[in-house]
Amino acid sequence: MDAQLAETSPPSRLAGEDEGISPEELALAARNHGIPLEALRYDVTPVGLHYLLTHYDMPALDAASWRLAITGKVRRELQLDLDALRSRQARTVRVTMECAGNGRARMHPRPVSQPWLVEAVGTADWTGVPLREVLAEAGVDPSAVEVVCTGADHGVERGVEQDYQRGLPLQEALRDEVLLAYEMNGQPLPPQHGHPVRLVVPGWYGMAHVKWLREISLVDEPFTGFQNAVAYRYKQTADDPGEPATRIAPRSLLLPPGFPDFMSRARVVRPGEVPLQGRAWSGHAPIARVEVSADGGGTWWDAELDAEDGRRWAWRGWRTSWRAEPGSHVLAVRATDADGNAQPTEQAWNRGGFGNNLVHTVPVTCLAE
Amino acid sequence: MDAQLAETSPPSRLAGEDEGISPEELALAARNHGIPLEALRYDVTPVGLHYLLTHYDMPALDAASWRLAITGKVRRELQLDLDALRSRQARTVRVTMECAGNGRARMHPRPVSQPWLVEAVGTADWTGVPLREVLAEAGVDPSAVEVVCTGADHGVERGVEQDYQRGLPLQEALRDEVLLAYEMNGQPLPPQHGHPVRLVVPGWYGMAHVKWLREISLVDEPFTGFQNAVAYRYKQTADDPGEPATRIAPRSLLLPPGFPDFMSRARVVRPGEVPLQGRAWSGHAPIARVEVSADGGGTWWDAELDAEDGRRWAWRGWRTSWRAEPGSHVLAVRATDADGNAQPTEQAWNRGGFGNNLVHTVPVTCLAE
Repeated sequence: MDAQLAETSPPSRLAGEDEGISPEELALAARNHGIPLEALRYDVTPVGLHYLLTHYDMPALDAASWRLAITGKVRRELQLDLDALRSRQARTVRVTMECAGNGRARMHPRPVSQPWLVEAVGTADWTGVPLREVLAEAGVDPSAVEVVCTGADHGVERGVEQDYQRGLPLQEALRDEVLLAYEMNGQPLPPQHGHPVRLVVPGWYGMAHVKWLREISLVDEPFTGFQNAVAYRYKQTADDPGEPATRIAPRSLLLPPGFPDFMSRARVVRPGEVPLQGRAWSGHAPIARVEVSADGGGTWWDAELDAEDGRRWAWRGWRTSWRAEPGSHVLAVRATDADGNAQPTEQAWNRGGFGNNLVHTVPVTCLAE
Repeated sequence: MDAQLAETSPPSRLAGEDEGISPEELALAARNHGIPLEALRYDVTPVGLHYLLTHYDMPALDAASWRLAITGKVRRELQLDLDALRSRQARTVRVTMECAGNGRARMHPRPVSQPWLVEAVGTADWTGVPLREVLAEAGVDPSAVEVVCTGADHGVERGVEQDYQRGLPLQEALRDEVLLAYEMNGQPLPPQHGHPVRLVVPGWYGMAHVKWLREISLVDEPFTGFQNAVAYRYKQTADDPGEPATRIAPRSLLLPPGFPDFMSRARVVRPGEVPLQGRAWSGHAPIARVEVSADGGGTWWDAELDAEDGRRWAWRGWRTSWRAEPGSHVLAVRATDADGNAQPTEQAWNRGGFGNNLVHTVPVTCLAE
């Protein structure tokens, strides 16, 4: 490794016991952003409110000259332009996408990286062509086991210069709802979400949804590039090979009631019936149950799930109400999916800060008036 | 003041000598966001990349039932709906908007609030009706000295429960280019930028551009509400009445060259000619000069300004190039406007962290290869 590159791009580290958010973490927090929690009110998150994580710089790609190469273990390699994608039957899938690092900044010790609290999520209508159709046209060789998706975004990470690349197991890539998406919420993809074309892998954390796609290569061995083999793994130590981050663990978020304090975001309500609502999702199975607590998780009651609408890959709305009495309260919410996966009340730790789906708590002050 | 409200919403404070960014500041950084610096490439910032600061929650307003009341020291009060605004001659103004708190997190000691580094800026095409036309229809009483603009966003700030409200001197409100804007970049305002109608005051910091407008009241005394009399003032101490934040001080930002390290955002280039470009703006006067340094501000050379396009209220592009040699370098850029206002190399401090337009520096590693 180039010594200067290594110096510019040091290894991962954990924050010290009393270390506040560092200037580097702040710089990431200023450019990436989460969903403002009041935007949980929208079934589909408006552009600009959907969470966003960019590893390097957003590349400036021209839709007219853009090409996607399908290469590797296929009968014939393909080169597709945007018209070639748009001329096929389009499919739209509503997908809740979440960063694998959501919740990282609530871990102790805190892995130093993009310091998400709970808000790295959003739901969009993605329109495009099922990847399987394009792969069928290329003809998948029986030896292929993964697709390696390469984006046009280029940078260095822990000393490794790279284009952003992720391998996805072939059986996942062949799912009907895995898309080469060219529209978000009915408009061409905005620059920050992968213009002109990105991959969408419903149910998986965001790292799988490769943006600014330029090549999809079929390979006959599992991909060992940085983003699969080093990053995005549940590890206990730097040397632990760990397990890969894949599907989204269940989570529910509460649309914070009342009104906020500017600085602390603490909520203020007045006594009486307070409607509560939020969203819940899981990449493993449909949401089966959402429970709410008004005493910080001591006791729970069931929220009412919104009607099933057949959109398996989108979050599910829920609602209930709470009788607020003067004083300080901690609201909490937890989701359980149909496979029995539930949010923990004590979070297991891992060195990358991935998959922290600890229950969401919201402190509320109820005024005396 | 309600004691519980005061407890939920404490006074402003300064960070301790070695205090990292606090959880509260992080929560603000996660929901508000700056422009990713590579987006300086766009003349007009795409929605979702423009900086965003929301004091409280974004309210959910319905365009069909929205009304704007024009009240106070006028001959006749008005109640306008969106059709009434849209039926008038529209005007579009390209405006560079910046948060008055941009640069706050680079101050020492650091005022604890939204922790901006340098990125709280963006440029949009705002379309709407000049406020002066609506005021003319209402008939401004000779006693009027300010317009007080009230948004639908509600919260508490340092113990004061409030709708977001700002007073603007009448002579500013009557400028041709001050708009009641209902479109951003040719589309209806998105929720986060004030849907359905916001005020746009070209040349002023963002706090003047009241979002989610619901009332404009003409008053015969300067407004003494929280956002004018307490916040958004250049103060040295908590008791100092200070001077109001008004127009945008000159600033230039560099579009970071080469490619970034994910974590540190440090830049990497290879030896040779490196094109440099960026944007510069000032609310006081047109940009007259942009200078660039490759030795952290020791020596400077002039960048070339893009051709004058008559868009007084938008940033001005500039470009130059730099011959990179292997090693570590610090690029810097500073702007001067036609009134002679220039960016400082040492920043004057104030307690709210406002108007920090210290020169922008970008560390760059040039590899040996």
